[in-house]
Amino acid sequence: MSETPFSAAETPLSIRAEALDAADELGKMRERFTLPDGLVYLDGNSLGALPAAVPAHVADVVSRQWGELLIRSWDESGWWTAPERIGDRIAPLVGAAPGRIVVGDSTSVNLFKALVAAARLAAGAGDGRGPGRDELLVDATTFPTDGYIAASAARMTGMKLIPVEPAAVPDALGPRTAAVLLNHVDYRSGRLHDLPGLTAAVQAAGALAVWDLCHSAGALPVGLNAHGVDLAVGCTYKYLNGGPGSPAYLYVAERHQAAFDSPLPGWNSHADPFAMTPDYTPAEGPVRGRVGTPDILSMLALEAALDAWEGVSVDAVRRKSLALTDFFLECVEAYVPAGRVESVTPADHAERGSQISLRTENAAAVMRELIARGVVGDFRAPDVLRFGFTPLYVGFADAERAARTLGHIYG
Amino acid sequence: MSETPFSAAETPLSIRAEALDAADELGKMRERFTLPDGLVYLDGNSLGALPAAVPAHVADVVSRQWGELLIRSWDESGWWTAPERIGDRIAPLVGAAPGRIVVGDSTSVNLFKALVAAARLAAGAGDGRGPGRDELLVDATTFPTDGYIAASAARMTGMKLIPVEPAAVPDALGPRTAAVLLNHVDYRSGRLHDLPGLTAAVQAAGALAVWDLCHSAGALPVGLNAHGVDLAVGCTYKYLNGGPGSPAYLYVAERHQAAFDSPLPGWNSHADPFAMTPDYTPAEGPVRGRVGTPDILSMLALEAALDAWEGVSVDAVRRKSLALTDFFLECVEAYVPAGRVESVTPADHAERGSQISLRTENAAAVMRELIARGVVGDFRAPDVLRFGFTPLYVGFADAERAARTLGHIYG
Repeated sequence: MSETPFSAAETPLSIRAEALDAADELGKMRERFTLPDGLVYLDGNSLGALPAAVPAHVADVVSRQWGELLIRSWDESGWWTAPERIGDRIAPLVGAAPGRIVVGDSTSVNLFKALVAAARLAAGAGDGRGPGRDELLVDATTFPTDGYIAASAARMTGMKLIPVEPAAVPDALGPRTAAVLLNHVDYRSGRLHDLPGLTAAVQAAGALAVWDLCHSAGALPVGLNAHGVDLAVGCTYKYLNGGPGSPAYLYVAERHQAAFDSPLPGWNSHADPFAMTPDYTPAEGPVRGRVGTPDILSMLALEAALDAWEGVSVDAVRRKSLALTDFFLECVEAYVPAGRVESVTPADHAERGSQISLRTENAAAVMRELIARGVVGDFRAPDVLRFGFTPLYVGFADAERAARTLGHIYG
Repeated sequence: MSETPFSAAETPLSIRAEALDAADELGKMRERFTLPDGLVYLDGNSLGALPAAVPAHVADVVSRQWGELLIRSWDESGWWTAPERIGDRIAPLVGAAPGRIVVGDSTSVNLFKALVAAARLAAGAGDGRGPGRDELLVDATTFPTDGYIAASAARMTGMKLIPVEPAAVPDALGPRTAAVLLNHVDYRSGRLHDLPGLTAAVQAAGALAVWDLCHSAGALPVGLNAHGVDLAVGCTYKYLNGGPGSPAYLYVAERHQAAFDSPLPGWNSHADPFAMTPDYTPAEGPVRGRVGTPDILSMLALEAALDAWEGVSVDAVRRKSLALTDFFLECVEAYVPAGRVESVTPADHAERGSQISLRTENAAAVMRELIARGVVGDFRAPDVLRFGFTPLYVGFADAERAARTLGHIYG
């Protein structure tokens, strides 16, 4: 085996990788991204790569739309309607109908909107629910911000926060459950949770299901509408490649839109914002999820980034994602000495997102060494090497090289 | 007088304008901005002009920092520390010490943080305040989002919202007042409120003063520290020229930082965010005002935009602003037939921000016509023509031409 990780070592696996890449129906999609030569980028689940269409579009937004058209761009360049227009671009990627998603603010801020609104919906009269529902269940293994924001939402709406392992949610549900916040894919382990089954269980108990899609949107089918999800949020800078800190989104099922009661009723969510009336009258539809003036540069960078999805089927993405992670695990098995790493990502496809998390000793140092050798994943405390597989721009040769480089480090 | 508004008509006022521009100590600052030829842009109080340094910087952020360095840029390009670093760039413009301002989210979101935190500070023990303080006073003439968000903050903290005209605030204060939200400059009339006097009155009543600086920061001295303001928020896309929807900021006085209790405790505000612990431990200092991942493209465009302030004194900006608005009013008086417009902006310098608002019949149509003739201000319902004067790039000839064009429309 070659000592340098940059050479195309001839191994049975590297030959297989080449064949798999040649047959890859999404192989051409990599041309839609700008990636440094020689880099294996497996951190798209933290920050997606730069779509090739973005730089020219952002330059136009800055120099022409802002610099020349100035204030006119709110109308003429479609700035004002961007949050819903881009929401409709995300909709097919998560199985939502048009008019259900609004883009803007961070994931944390959208979680706050969603959880407070869910508590109010659960306590509201008229739909069989009632004020006795005062418990908010939250994934005990969640990405931290979800738990922190859920605690604040509970505190401010008089609910009790109950952390529960996702598998234990069905048993924790009861007549006092108002809402349940779950992650579709766990950020650390890469475990895919059962969105259809858990949503059904939550709703059977009379509560609302709120899903965080940060680690699933753009990597696998979500089916928000098909599975009757109540509310959802997600970021756009991971598998949607919107850029660093690009705005998040909020999904509100149609049946909840009319009663959606935002804790952040900024002027952009008003039915007639430019009337500038002292009284607040909320807009209908997804606009109600807005708050203040949207960050247009980040928002329109995201819009151009979504062009990379033109003609791409999420089912094809899922197929390739599973094939990539399977192949990566096979390569790890072949290249890494036994007992040095252990996958904490479920082997079962039905329980796997689009990442592989390997538990190992000295994980932080191992990841630094991998990065030094041109394989970028990330480290998650205390002992996890995390490798994200973005099917639009990661290939099988990348997976093989990543595993081979890891093997060299242990070898 | 010439029939075409684009010619440099020789009138006593145009000759004066030329002399004033020639003597203008800030005249050279216009070179720091990109403005279309022939345009008189008096809408910088809605969307500031494009600073010349921004396009190249944004291109670098997109293509190199994101596209090449990818995830490494959170450290290597200073993305992670941008909210406080840029806060410290804004600080001298509003009279704040370093370490008091954090940039991120929209003004509306920051208002929510500030008002909920103010309510909690007012109700908190240990500083002579107490739970009997349950009234939130808010400027009855405020920009709408402030009132809407204040209503939500009051609802969620058990406070009573009381709208009060700013001048009536001293009489409305009492032992139940928790906090008062005021606008430094009224968005519609351009009236500058007495920040030092009102802050002192609010604090003498044992309440907290929360100021909205959207229409004053970058246009006149604010003196947050000198006047002992408790909390403040502001946007950055008006006189700070950060670009459409660029992130807002939150100021927390040093004495309140340790007890600042955010309703949006996202993971970015954690003392050790990458430990990703289930328990929330807030960071010290301005970091505590963060929520989720900041929108880096908009944030770093703002950072480059702030380069336009290099070597500029806010006192000089204020001097020019008053001279410009005085001169504009003089030109309006000279060019516009008597009785057609009436200034609703105070004549007294001590009560004037950096805009002139003229009440007129058919204001929307008049503004459309002005814009068609190359003079861009804006219309505010029901009857106001609003002209913002940004001293860094607006000159006296602009003021003269704007008034002359207005005169032509009525002439």
